[in-house]
Amino acid sequence: MDKRSVLQARKAESVGQQVCLEGWVRTRRDSKGGFSFIELNDGSCLSNIQVVADNQLPNYESEIKHLTPGCSIRVVGEIKESQGKGQATEVQASEVFLYGTADAETYPLQKKRHTFEKLREWAHLRTRSNTFGSVFRVRNRVSFSIHQFFQERGFLYVNTPIITASDCEGAGEMFRVTTLDVDQPPKVNGKVDFSKDFFARPAFLTVSGQLEGEIFATSLGKVYTFGPTFRAENSNTSRHLAEFWMVEPEIAFADLEENMEVAEAFLKRIFTDVMNDCAEDMEFFNERIAPGILDTLQSIVDSEFLRCSYTDAIDILQKSGQAFEYPVTWGMDLQSEHERFLTEQHFKRPVILHDYPRTIKPFYMRCNDDGKTVRAMDVLVPQVGEIIGGSQREERLDVLESRMKEQGLNAEEYWWYLDLRRYGTVPHSGFGLGLERVLQFITGMGNIRDVIPFPRTPGWAEF
Amino acid sequence: MDKRSVLQARKAESVGQQVCLEGWVRTRRDSKGGFSFIELNDGSCLSNIQVVADNQLPNYESEIKHLTPGCSIRVVGEIKESQGKGQATEVQASEVFLYGTADAETYPLQKKRHTFEKLREWAHLRTRSNTFGSVFRVRNRVSFSIHQFFQERGFLYVNTPIITASDCEGAGEMFRVTTLDVDQPPKVNGKVDFSKDFFARPAFLTVSGQLEGEIFATSLGKVYTFGPTFRAENSNTSRHLAEFWMVEPEIAFADLEENMEVAEAFLKRIFTDVMNDCAEDMEFFNERIAPGILDTLQSIVDSEFLRCSYTDAIDILQKSGQAFEYPVTWGMDLQSEHERFLTEQHFKRPVILHDYPRTIKPFYMRCNDDGKTVRAMDVLVPQVGEIIGGSQREERLDVLESRMKEQGLNAEEYWWYLDLRRYGTVPHSGFGLGLERVLQFITGMGNIRDVIPFPRTPGWAEF
Repeated sequence: MDKRSVLQARKAESVGQQVCLEGWVRTRRDSKGGFSFIELNDGSCLSNIQVVADNQLPNYESEIKHLTPGCSIRVVGEIKESQGKGQATEVQASEVFLYGTADAETYPLQKKRHTFEKLREWAHLRTRSNTFGSVFRVRNRVSFSIHQFFQERGFLYVNTPIITASDCEGAGEMFRVTTLDVDQPPKVNGKVDFSKDFFARPAFLTVSGQLEGEIFATSLGKVYTFGPTFRAENSNTSRHLAEFWMVEPEIAFADLEENMEVAEAFLKRIFTDVMNDCAEDMEFFNERIAPGILDTLQSIVDSEFLRCSYTDAIDILQKSGQAFEYPVTWGMDLQSEHERFLTEQHFKRPVILHDYPRTIKPFYMRCNDDGKTVRAMDVLVPQVGEIIGGSQREERLDVLESRMKEQGLNAEEYWWYLDLRRYGTVPHSGFGLGLERVLQFITGMGNIRDVIPFPRTPGWAEF
Repeated sequence: MDKRSVLQARKAESVGQQVCLEGWVRTRRDSKGGFSFIELNDGSCLSNIQVVADNQLPNYESEIKHLTPGCSIRVVGEIKESQGKGQATEVQASEVFLYGTADAETYPLQKKRHTFEKLREWAHLRTRSNTFGSVFRVRNRVSFSIHQFFQERGFLYVNTPIITASDCEGAGEMFRVTTLDVDQPPKVNGKVDFSKDFFARPAFLTVSGQLEGEIFATSLGKVYTFGPTFRAENSNTSRHLAEFWMVEPEIAFADLEENMEVAEAFLKRIFTDVMNDCAEDMEFFNERIAPGILDTLQSIVDSEFLRCSYTDAIDILQKSGQAFEYPVTWGMDLQSEHERFLTEQHFKRPVILHDYPRTIKPFYMRCNDDGKTVRAMDVLVPQVGEIIGGSQREERLDVLESRMKEQGLNAEEYWWYLDLRRYGTVPHSGFGLGLERVLQFITGMGNIRDVIPFPRTPGWAEF
């Protein structure tokens, strides 16, 4: 007897096959005619398959009639054309084997709806619900799409380090990693002696793999990282996680124009794949969570992303007549309200802003000749604002050193980063995309904690 | 002018094209006829392409004749059939643009060979060498092959948490993650008050994603993790890293037999892909690093993996007449010498040992009816010994609880893991593969620090 997934068994071409299906009961209802309908789900797709079990089955009275949501079963039977609506097939069971019960008195996922907040406390069971099954199938597809996009273009996947000894980017608060006995740490001169720690120095969790990614780009050409990243910020918002996954391509011999082209093609590829390959899940989000998201994604795929300089954007904003909470002046960091006005109301499509003021950007971005701006870019999309941030990197040793001095960084700590400019330096560019941010956009899930399997936030590291 | 990679330009069908190539100079030699040969590498493949630059080029005397290893250049020219050996094509340069020099006095990677130990100190430059270029192209291919194998079989990629509040498996020493001021931590009763820490409790870096992977398998069916994993063990060996990447599939409704089948197909797929798609790099390893590795890999792909119980293996070892350092008795953990004897000398092919003594295996492995063994498996391959470890998981709540008690574990900490057995429990199985261990096997690199971009080991977290 061949095993089949529910996804396979739901296809019309499966009619007539004798199959074995395994999964979890979503609902059971009994017909007056002496049989029961069991809705079975195995996670292979959003939909269930209907199993028809009649009272001639030996365990009908003893087990089948007592099946409740959450029970696990194996069904052997024939796939038949379904008379019911919304499904091509159903299974006429010749055997229903009960693996495990789920006490209806205590099983948390009864039919009644739970809030997403409540389900976060049951992160070990929420994946059995429609919404979270769809979220994690979409997350899987997006993750693989990311790999496919870069692999097909000859990028090498690189694992930059998670534990790092330097806060290279100054990008944010970091978590310390230690094996010292924090109750009784070794001390010198009244201070903790980190030379006794595991790495013989202070060590932290990475905030970005970019700088190490540049090492690989400036030797192997085109690379990307895709791994966990950490921020120890006490931000209890719907858009922040202490642990999240980030994609960071880095491209040798690429200027900002090429960087923009890659970023645009990359987003379009992700959106196209998820619409093609998670059609059922995306219909669900489009109906229940984010009305119109399919139209939005399709329009992004179909549109050419606009390019607009920061300076022109400031001009547009100032002349817009809009009352912004944060007044618009050249040199400021754009707020979400500004970004959304530009992409949603002014341009009405995705826009890539470029050439930002040097004073608001990190030291590694390439300086323009105007002395005022750097070759930074942000990709803005409707509803979210910034979804990708990147830049051409400063490849000139002297300029980089003076920028580091300007920002008060210690050049000695960056000896290897400077070596990349000292020996065979090349123009290069890259960008970063937060996986969970793009998943929030695609699914419409309001809280970022609901698009990652086990969120880590201030005060929360359960599971 | 179209950009081309060296990989593309080396193909015979490229002859006649006008192209632009960018990369780093490996060597330059000058001919008496008034031209220079430049060996150019861009990381797209192991081989260089030969660039012919003649003295009619305007910067021939000022720049080209001074090119040294490590310089970065752009070459515009025509791809021609090469007269030289070992290469189908070469480039007749019409332009050579110098991006960056590499002072021959100070550039660490001069022609002279360096030891791998020395190159570890220059991890930011070692990727420019032949060996490490090949290592990281192979690493990339294996990583993508892992994703492809599971995606094609309908497994979902799951990111289990990196920061965790529980030492669930007791698998090894853990790194603490904290934002407390370790010089002046808040205390209660003389002990550090972790309720004031970022997660309001003690937190650590994960040693395995398996238990969380089981959450996803017992709701979505077939899943795999692939991410960084940590061990704070003070092991300064050629086989240990404090930070490494691990693959952990978990399969609902699968018994140990199916687990073995997946593990065998998985290894064969990785080896096949790397031989097909990294042929040049693998030839390099076969010649320089691990003579015979290609034959070994091919024979593994062609052979059927043997299945042998632990008990039978003990019998074979005891009757072998071999003098082992560790004497063989039933109930012992097999040592590398035993594993290698079985796979290299006795069976002469890969073998999967199964049904190990329960006393030497973790609590989550399924107990056999004999009361003495559990449904564990180890895949052994020649030269390495164990390369994969896995098991069928204990799905019976009462048995699991008594096993936990037996091993002194606190059931309350595992409330959610037990819930998976309480509600709709199902048979399920999984295994783990360490990426760097399999890369060591494939490449023959003697030290595991040389198959990961930036190794983390006791006393070392540079870059």
